[in-house]
Amino acid sequence: MIHNPLRDLPAFDDIEDAAQQLRGITFHTPLLRNAALDERIGAPVWIKPETLQRTGSFKMRGAWNRISRIPEADRRRGIVAFSSGNHAQGVAESARILGLHATIVMPADAPKAKIDAARGRGAQVRLYDRLNESREHIAAEIVEKTGATLIRPFDDAWIMAGQGTVGLEAATDANAAGIALSSVICNASGGGLIAGVAVAFEALSPATQIWVAEPAGHDDIRRSLASGRIIANEPGCRSIADALLAPEPGMLPFQVHQRRLAGGFAATDDQLLDAMSFAFHHLKLVVEPGGACSLAVLLNNAGHFAARGPVLVVLSGGNVDADLFSKAIGRQPAVRVK
Amino acid sequence: MIHNPLRDLPAFDDIEDAAQQLRGITFHTPLLRNAALDERIGAPVWIKPETLQRTGSFKMRGAWNRISRIPEADRRRGIVAFSSGNHAQGVAESARILGLHATIVMPADAPKAKIDAARGRGAQVRLYDRLNESREHIAAEIVEKTGATLIRPFDDAWIMAGQGTVGLEAATDANAAGIALSSVICNASGGGLIAGVAVAFEALSPATQIWVAEPAGHDDIRRSLASGRIIANEPGCRSIADALLAPEPGMLPFQVHQRRLAGGFAATDDQLLDAMSFAFHHLKLVVEPGGACSLAVLLNNAGHFAARGPVLVVLSGGNVDADLFSKAIGRQPAVRVK
Repeated sequence: MIHNPLRDLPAFDDIEDAAQQLRGITFHTPLLRNAALDERIGAPVWIKPETLQRTGSFKMRGAWNRISRIPEADRRRGIVAFSSGNHAQGVAESARILGLHATIVMPADAPKAKIDAARGRGAQVRLYDRLNESREHIAAEIVEKTGATLIRPFDDAWIMAGQGTVGLEAATDANAAGIALSSVICNASGGGLIAGVAVAFEALSPATQIWVAEPAGHDDIRRSLASGRIIANEPGCRSIADALLAPEPGMLPFQVHQRRLAGGFAATDDQLLDAMSFAFHHLKLVVEPGGACSLAVLLNNAGHFAARGPVLVVLSGGNVDADLFSKAIGRQPAVRVK
Repeated sequence: MIHNPLRDLPAFDDIEDAAQQLRGITFHTPLLRNAALDERIGAPVWIKPETLQRTGSFKMRGAWNRISRIPEADRRRGIVAFSSGNHAQGVAESARILGLHATIVMPADAPKAKIDAARGRGAQVRLYDRLNESREHIAAEIVEKTGATLIRPFDDAWIMAGQGTVGLEAATDANAAGIALSSVICNASGGGLIAGVAVAFEALSPATQIWVAEPAGHDDIRRSLASGRIIANEPGCRSIADALLAPEPGMLPFQVHQRRLAGGFAATDDQLLDAMSFAFHHLKLVVEPGGACSLAVLLNNAGHFAARGPVLVVLSGGNVDADLFSKAIGRQPAVRVK
């Protein structure tokens, strides 16, 4: 049980508790199959499409599990969050449902779809310059001035437990269908989602290996795992995966990563665009660059995963601007049609 | 039970039988929810995404249910089909799995994605001019010359029973979840899918009204229902819904339509593009123009359906070229973000 969410790690029963908290708010997303993907990889692949989740990404799960637990007395002072976009949607939508005032600190170069959607949900958006301002400082100032509750994107046990319901659902569904998953490939930025997923699989499917997918140059979790300590990304390094640009692994999540992750792979921008295109042409799913990272890793390391057996790939988000999506799907990847 | 598939109508047990036949070949597609859609319509909406079905549309169901029943002795002479594209995928993929030779007669202006995909599945594609040639005649010639079995797109009880498994799955899932659907909105061209869906709901959820969605100018089923006899569309009338351009209701399907459909609505090209855009921005699903017709009808007749209660909308296909999809999603629809 979580006593101090800024210090405790979530256990499996915290994830079960989060699932109760999320009832009627988020959707139990299905496990999908695709014949073209199976054939391409040479092993059975299941897809967990969190793109279809409320707000278009898994982030609603953690946000609601955290925000709905704010004590009544603190609610009128509102909430504040910093986010590249998807956490912003989960926070803004949760605040809208609960009638709380939300301020979101977002990079000025975040996708327009994400900025507009946060505003459309009633949040106040404070834009900042990703390279010259600190989102943490801006958020801290707002907290000091207003008394608002800061909703961290991943370094919070309730957030991690909420995201872990992705793993709870997937492992439960896989077990019920008699599917023995060898690998899960999951995207990571700060690593809250993959940490929660890892805790859920540890309890429900302990033999399944959990692999992290990150953008090239932002593969801080992969490198931190390899060296046994937190290593930050080079500042200023760019990727089109706007959702996966946290500077380093979250402190709480990384404790789970060290215990449970099997390793990781990175995907280049070209590989992300190709994966988005594959998802359009074959899966018929809209996936954003960061959401497609796991698929890119699978497509580019098919042999590694096929040798192990059945794979689950988590598509974490689908909030992408029309122009970038059009660019990705117009690239004419190698024709593969099944 | 079906004795003569060109004369008999499918009964509910034929649909159950088709579901058995389809095991391990097609997927049981989920029922999805979307908060933005619920809010926009003002009633709970469930989505049956046959876009996620093998080959990108429901057509695989009917094709497999028909082709897998071809007697061993006839198989070596192959099969032939005429199709604007999605039936072609189902036929080609079924033939590929069974090792049969398939010839598909397709309009020269069919989406490139569909022509390429049929060829990619190993089918021989014979293109024809939609306005000056008869696909029926071309197919009949091939049958005469080769002895191939003709796989009709909808006027065949096994095809209709196969498509009906969409309704079997949806009604079964809705009943299991305690959802009392007031309306189903389903796309139609020749009307095999909606006929099968209607037979399944008649057995499992008889109070549910079944509504047909068609492109404007190709609303032959709606007009035929209203006048009590089969009325063809005006020849030469255009629509971007390439999957929904059959000249008139199928003879067998229309017998079911007359008994079971509540009525119908038509959607213009602009409404289809807006629905595709809505699906991209909010549902995060790739839907082709014809596949989005039901959603367009729902979005443009929200009051009609909300007054009746919970709605199921069948998204029948997602095989769309990148350039048309980019055009649809770049249209900047009214901003609605939840």
